[in-house]
Amino acid sequence: MNIYADNAATTKMSKAAVNAMMPYIEEFYGNPSSLYSFGQRAKEAVESARETIAGCIGAQRGEILFTSGGSEADNQAILSAAYFGRKSGKMHIISDTIEHHAVLHTLKKLEKEGFSVTYLPVHTDGIVRTEELEAAIREDTCLVTVMYANNEIGTIQPIREIGKICRERKILFHTDAVQAVGHLPIDVESEYIDMLSASAHKFHGPKGTGFLYARKGVRLTNLIEGGAQERGRRAGTENVPGIAGMSAALAESVQNIEAGQKHAAALRDRLIAGLAEIPHSALNGDPVKRLPSNVSFCFEGIEGESLLLLLDDKGICASSGSACTSGSLDPSHVLLAIGRVHDVAHGSLRLTLGDDATNEDVDYIIKSVKEVVDYLRSFSPVWRDLCAGKAQFIL
Amino acid sequence: MNIYADNAATTKMSKAAVNAMMPYIEEFYGNPSSLYSFGQRAKEAVESARETIAGCIGAQRGEILFTSGGSEADNQAILSAAYFGRKSGKMHIISDTIEHHAVLHTLKKLEKEGFSVTYLPVHTDGIVRTEELEAAIREDTCLVTVMYANNEIGTIQPIREIGKICRERKILFHTDAVQAVGHLPIDVESEYIDMLSASAHKFHGPKGTGFLYARKGVRLTNLIEGGAQERGRRAGTENVPGIAGMSAALAESVQNIEAGQKHAAALRDRLIAGLAEIPHSALNGDPVKRLPSNVSFCFEGIEGESLLLLLDDKGICASSGSACTSGSLDPSHVLLAIGRVHDVAHGSLRLTLGDDATNEDVDYIIKSVKEVVDYLRSFSPVWRDLCAGKAQFIL
Repeated sequence: MNIYADNAATTKMSKAAVNAMMPYIEEFYGNPSSLYSFGQRAKEAVESARETIAGCIGAQRGEILFTSGGSEADNQAILSAAYFGRKSGKMHIISDTIEHHAVLHTLKKLEKEGFSVTYLPVHTDGIVRTEELEAAIREDTCLVTVMYANNEIGTIQPIREIGKICRERKILFHTDAVQAVGHLPIDVESEYIDMLSASAHKFHGPKGTGFLYARKGVRLTNLIEGGAQERGRRAGTENVPGIAGMSAALAESVQNIEAGQKHAAALRDRLIAGLAEIPHSALNGDPVKRLPSNVSFCFEGIEGESLLLLLDDKGICASSGSACTSGSLDPSHVLLAIGRVHDVAHGSLRLTLGDDATNEDVDYIIKSVKEVVDYLRSFSPVWRDLCAGKAQFIL
Repeated sequence: MNIYADNAATTKMSKAAVNAMMPYIEEFYGNPSSLYSFGQRAKEAVESARETIAGCIGAQRGEILFTSGGSEADNQAILSAAYFGRKSGKMHIISDTIEHHAVLHTLKKLEKEGFSVTYLPVHTDGIVRTEELEAAIREDTCLVTVMYANNEIGTIQPIREIGKICRERKILFHTDAVQAVGHLPIDVESEYIDMLSASAHKFHGPKGTGFLYARKGVRLTNLIEGGAQERGRRAGTENVPGIAGMSAALAESVQNIEAGQKHAAALRDRLIAGLAEIPHSALNGDPVKRLPSNVSFCFEGIEGESLLLLLDDKGICASSGSACTSGSLDPSHVLLAIGRVHDVAHGSLRLTLGDDATNEDVDYIIKSVKEVVDYLRSFSPVWRDLCAGKAQFIL
């Protein structure tokens, strides 16, 4: 059995996306900046994708900027707000402790440049409290950046409430919505979102493409200088096939969002119930306010890495947390932020099911995880000490 | 007849590139940062591409950094050299007046930050003089950035000589080789190149992919912060299909480089000879030290834009200069730099033939351009004045 349960890391391109992409690879390969009709055909594809994508999140066509992915969009959004903020003496930013590294490392860079950043704590449910946000706002706050949904533990933030506060206080609000776009219904207008970052390969679009929504009037600085593409805000020949593929993938995802959410949530809850039977295990993040496809657990007394390798032997692709930081020996900053201690955070497992997952897949995963956890605990010195009462169980 | 003669703007993806890309879209779509074997398969594709690409320019595997394209690579290379230069008090950069905007606009940004930039003039042949470079070097020069071959007029710079001077003077040397990679033999070692930027879609690879070569020991700052991809120097999930496609395209281009150059140069010279028959016309750039596929002309008394539109009607895709700046009413900075006056620079035409071009294509282009130029001149007031002796011919 082969089950790909790491859809938060990346997804398979949909047929619709591949079909939308291929004509711009094989036939209409012109440069959209060209004057001749062959190039204009490519330009039309880019502009039509812009319109489609804008429509999927309640934005206007001119508010969508194409990028090479979510990280680039995050970087550009945050740096833009910061650098324009600085011009009017506002050098304070509010974020939180469980952001993606594309946000956190950009903020770290800004701190080195003299900006001051408040990182809101999240509670054990992984959720930011709006009253803490309100209390953190200063006269010189130029940006609030809080992710839509977390990539590791799947918790969904109160985006509309945060947006409303920011709009009332006239502070720019950016959300890294890489995990949410195509999976949750989003309306930038009613959620008071000023900037939003998205990545195509998280919603069955191609890798190497993403977009930044920036509300009309929000000023952007350039990350990549050069040609006049994207109204002079992002240089480089447009990735026409990628953009066309992203648009088709998003349109399809958004169309199926309601049915997909229901299907995914049912499987998710079945998986959570099954894994919860494992002694000394715990779900990470809020059980309800979470992405419909995200299951994240900690198991006491084991190493997440070994768990993943043995699941791989059983044909299950899973992750311990963010794909972007694998290879690092540090425990996940997200799990630490929701109060997991180092040892427990090391024994984490993230399963993010695909649209085509079935009950059988879920049952096979539950059976496999139980077997592997049992097996790993059977020779774990930490587990032995816990069972012998030499150390205390936390979960 | 349909002739795509704008291969400097973008090229059609080769079959080899499409074939190399598809398995990573349709089958092995995993995230290369994942631990499981399915993801590792994607990682192997990325690393194998890195090795292939390095081999194509005489570099080592670890010296290749994947980017979203040539503009990103240019930006990152120049900013890196500048920011590390500043740390040791070196804030002077040498470049030239005919660089691509990805270089020029990045330099402009640095000038605003207090850097000082010397723009070497080019002579009427479009070529930088090494003695002028030597004279411009200062104690605080941290970078020389000179393009390998120009995107508008095709002239090739004395890269090896420039590199040698820089190496002797211990100054970093970057070259924007977007137009050269895959078209001219390049060896970063013997040409003393420290950094080199390339873009896949200029050599029959996919759009949205490129690479930066940075010699071992050359320090890089990040343009996009976030995950630990590309050894922490470029965040974001790798565009695996794009990278695999780029590698296949470059390997094929480099393998055919000698035969391709000969074929292209023969067609180029036939085209140049034909267009030179048009009265009051002139080739832009050096007739010999130029890209084998580049033909660039100025025609007195006409508007380049009208010329392009009428050629489009005849099935010929051509450009007036850089695709990246079309839409702008300013005459090309490159044509002005080689001494063309505004009026003449406006009447420019760039034809960049593909590998599959034939003598028949060339003859059709010559015939068509002659017809269109004649037609446009027939009702051009500027041309009438010139012929009536009310204004003076320049060409």
